[in-house]
Amino acid sequence: MKKEIRVMGIDDAPHKFKGKGNVLVLGSIFRGGSFLDGIVSTKISIDGNNSTSKLIEMINNCKFKSQLQCIFLDGIALGGFNVIDIKELSKKTKIPVIVIIRKKPNLTNIKRILTRLNKKNKVKLIEKAGSIIPIGKIYIQLTGLSLEKAKDILKITCTRSNIPEAIRYSHIIAGGIATGESKGKA
Amino acid sequence: MKKEIRVMGIDDAPHKFKGKGNVLVLGSIFRGGSFLDGIVSTKISIDGNNSTSKLIEMINNCKFKSQLQCIFLDGIALGGFNVIDIKELSKKTKIPVIVIIRKKPNLTNIKRILTRLNKKNKVKLIEKAGSIIPIGKIYIQLTGLSLEKAKDILKITCTRSNIPEAIRYSHIIAGGIATGESKGKA
Repeated sequence: MKKEIRVMGIDDAPHKFKGKGNVLVLGSIFRGGSFLDGIVSTKISIDGNNSTSKLIEMINNCKFKSQLQCIFLDGIALGGFNVIDIKELSKKTKIPVIVIIRKKPNLTNIKRILTRLNKKNKVKLIEKAGSIIPIGKIYIQLTGLSLEKAKDILKITCTRSNIPEAIRYSHIIAGGIATGESKGKA
Repeated sequence: MKKEIRVMGIDDAPHKFKGKGNVLVLGSIFRGGSFLDGIVSTKISIDGNNSTSKLIEMINNCKFKSQLQCIFLDGIALGGFNVIDIKELSKKTKIPVIVIIRKKPNLTNIKRILTRLNKKNKVKLIEKAGSIIPIGKIYIQLTGLSLEKAKDILKITCTRSNIPEAIRYSHIIAGGIATGESKGKA
């Protein structure tokens, strides 16, 4: 696999929990783990249901799209509980998706909260995303590529920490835009 | 000089000429020419007079401030004709300032426009910023450091083009936020 494969790492800006309105979502287009090629952005509703369609639109309109070999998500939801349908995202963009999970999630707890909030459709999306696989110090969910290939891509893209640079950048940048100052290294 | 000196590169988001309202301004904090450490942001008025005070506030509130060894500006104005007083900026932040000018400006023309618009105070700021010095394919204005030191800093920070990475990143990021997609490489 080439060292300079193009990938996109997606993260949202900080926002209040249980807030209303929209939150900024950024996609950083990176060459492997080395440098930033471009930025795309969209807005999604906090705790809403439009993250999948908004991401599909953002990615399909990106001029680098034909060269993107992988989409990284920082967790399976954006803007609180706006859960992403990763199979649909991969199908409609024709690009493999890897969900990066920094700490092992308490799925039982998350599902209980969502069920209590009468959001069983979101529980289904989480289940649809498939098994959570430990890789080194993180966990991933994946669709559209083999575990072997996912490991190769992570090796190339995680150059400064145990998450891909493309996600680390989206996190730093979204934080700096939303609050005036980023929290520094992710 | 160390290769990983911290610098900040500032640029504004795309906006309509002769527009009203505010424009987003970003500062990318970089280690030399190699990687992004953080992002700060502010807003300034299009064609207004508050760029100097807003930048001073943004820089002095930045948590990396004590380590910043140079501030790069992409031209002497932000948001159209919101001209920056670079001597004041350097004095109030205690950090050297280098203005990066990509193409040799037609100063006579700019001054004529500003005089016609009854903006002689802005003509004075441009004159106050000092001589425009050619360095390789670009031009610079500088304050708070020697030309020799400026050349050393440029050598370390311009790793992928003839402008510092910190400015190239602010340009890409601000473009991606404002329009949904950056124009790619600056």
